[in-house]
Formats: sequence, C-alpha cells, structure tokens
Amino acid sequence: MLALDDGGLAMVPALLAAASKGDDALLRAVLSEHEKAGFTIIGVEAAMGELLATEGSWGACSPNATDQRDIAKAARVAAAIGALDVGQGAVVSDGVVLAVEAQEGTDAMLGRVAELPLAVRGAPHGRRGVLVKRPKPNQELRVDLPTIGLRTIEGAAAAGLSGIAVEAGRALVVRKSEVIAAADAADMFLYGFRPEEADEA
Amino acid sequence: MLALDDGGLAMVPALLAAASKGDDALLRAVLSEHEKAGFTIIGVEAAMGELLATEGSWGACSPNATDQRDIAKAARVAAAIGALDVGQGAVVSDGVVLAVEAQEGTDAMLGRVAELPLAVRGAPHGRRGVLVKRPKPNQELRVDLPTIGLRTIEGAAAAGLSGIAVEAGRALVVRKSEVIAAADAADMFLYGFRPEEADEA
Repeated sequence: MLALDDGGLAMVPALLAAASKGDDALLRAVLSEHEKAGFTIIGVEAAMGELLATEGSWGACSPNATDQRDIAKAARVAAAIGALDVGQGAVVSDGVVLAVEAQEGTDAMLGRVAELPLAVRGAPHGRRGVLVKRPKPNQELRVDLPTIGLRTIEGAAAAGLSGIAVEAGRALVVRKSEVIAAADAADMFLYGFRPEEADEA
Repeated sequence: MLALDDGGLAMVPALLAAASKGDDALLRAVLSEHEKAGFTIIGVEAAMGELLATEGSWGACSPNATDQRDIAKAARVAAAIGALDVGQGAVVSDGVVLAVEAQEGTDAMLGRVAELPLAVRGAPHGRRGVLVKRPKPNQELRVDLPTIGLRTIEGAAAAGLSGIAVEAGRALVVRKSEVIAAADAADMFLYGFRPEEADEA
C-alpha cells in the first residue's frame, strides 16, 4: 500500500499523464516533479561510481570473434528497440536474434531463451550467444541505467550463453565481485564495450 | 529423423551456410536451391488467395481510436524489428510496447503478455491492446507470410487484448470463418490495415 503525503499527492496528475507514454516518460516526470519540489537529482556515477561497468573483460573469460559479432548485432538490436522505447536487452547467438526484451524484463527473457530448441542456442557445455543490455537513446541515465546482477548471471548461464556485454560507463553491476566470480565459475565472459565498437562491427 | 535423397543432400552445404544468417536467408536459400533444381515457386496468393487477409474489419468488432493508435505503434515496432530480421510481431497497449516476438514465436509471446501485471494490460472483461503481425521488409513473401489462426485468437483472448491487426493482403488467415467466429465470441476485432495507415498515424 502506497501512502502519499501532500507533496506526493500533488505529483499524481503529472505522473498519471506521463505513465501512458511509457517508462521513460514516467521516469522523467518523476524527476522533474521532484526538481520542481526543490530536490536536486544527481547521477549514479556521482553517488556510486564503483558500480559502473568498466571497459573490456572484467573476469577470467573474454569474448571470441563470434561473440564479438554477436555483441555488435545485439547492440544494434538493443539500440533499435530502445529508440522505440521498447526495452534495453537482446540475446543474439551466431548472428540470430533469439529474444528481445520488452515489459517482461531481462530475467523472463533469459528464461525463454533457455526453453528454445538446442539447435539455435548454446548450453552449459557448449556455450553460444550473448546478452547485451544498453540504455535507450532517450533514457534518463541519472536514475535508470541498465543493470546486471547475480540473477542476470544465473539466467544467462542457464540459457547457455557465452557471456554478457554492456556499454562501458553506461550500466550498473550490483555486487560486482560476486557477479564476476559467478561468471568465472560458469565460464562466461563479462564485457564492457565502447559504443563505437558495436557500431563499426 | 530427416532422410535426404541425393537432391536434398546436394542442397545441404548451401543451406547450412545460409542458416547462420537468420530465417530469411535460410528460406531464400531453400527456394533458390529448389529453383536451381528445376522447380518453379509460386506465391500463396496464386495457390490459396482466399486465405489472404482483407482490408478493414472482418468480424463483428472494430478497433476504436485507442486501438488504431496501438495498431500504428505496433506496426512501426514490427517494421523496425523486422528490418533487423528479429521477428514479425509486437503487442502494444495504450501506447506501451508489452512484448516483441523473436525466436519464441507468437503463441509464446502472447503467453507472456498474459502473465504481465494487470496494471499494464487488459483482461477479458476490459480488453486493451493489440497484436500486430507484419512481414519483415526482406521477407520471402511467396512462402513465409505472417499467419494467424485459432491458436492466435485463443492466445490474444487470454492476454486480454482488444484485437489483432495484420497488413491487408500480406498475411494468411488459416480456417478464416472459425477464426472470425472465435474472435466475435471473445469480443475482439480482426483488422487488415493498409501500410500507409500505420505509417501516417
């Protein structure tokens, strides 16, 4: 049960109007209503910069040439769906787009990849394919960066993926050392790419 | 178990090479290998034109203004993901993209819409949202038109959708009279739109 004080109640009409335009519009309205109320919104890089994804491989494994091509394709798909405010994530294996994320979220998307026929996806003893998450072009980066955590690793591992890639500096890794240890244990890479890398491939 | 004769075996290298490039490349290779072997491929409109989707509403229900906006948005999303060879279908409700189809297929996509929170989707006693299927820009229209049938109606009904829309003349409706009766019984529209309708909205 959400109990709103007077300040919260005053924001409701603007938030309801924005909610029908999608996630990004709603979040921007939440921020601008709080700024009107005198708050200053700082970005996560100022508050918790150590959670930001770094460039290159973070753990023991690195993407091979096939993985790099899959990363580039998944990054292009994620950019295209992000431009339409659909979602942030996509899974590509050997050039084939296995899944695209919308309202169901990353965990559910990885869950359905794990149910696809083995002919199109990898498995723990022969990993193939990558998950890429990247911000939507209009995304409010101060408060809504793509995020990966232990559940993401577990889902990607069960889906038989080779690894996970995000934009360096534009994604959060929650409990990073545990995330890296879990990826290492599953023989999966974790990789921060520069946007130019994806666009030129 | 697939048993290939000599003609089939001769096609295997070309088909394997094409398979890694996605569904469309594989289908085009299947057709061109058969044409090389002396077959002529005719389009479904020549063989079974009565299955093609017609323009406007086919049953008792018609899309309202909100549905028309959702149709236009879902059509744009389907075109964007189609251009990347991702898939043919998308579900939009009140302007929000609920799901995008990739390798899992339309039925699985509708299944997960039915599992989304009721705050973002409709229900049988308050239907909202539309499924749109349209061909990918590079799709081999002779043999791979988007298709809807009774299972699609059942899935859309369970997902609480208002209706289903496809491009007039560029989708197949299998067992059309039964499909229309099922949609009427569920109070859902079935609609064939002109591409210009979607692009101008």
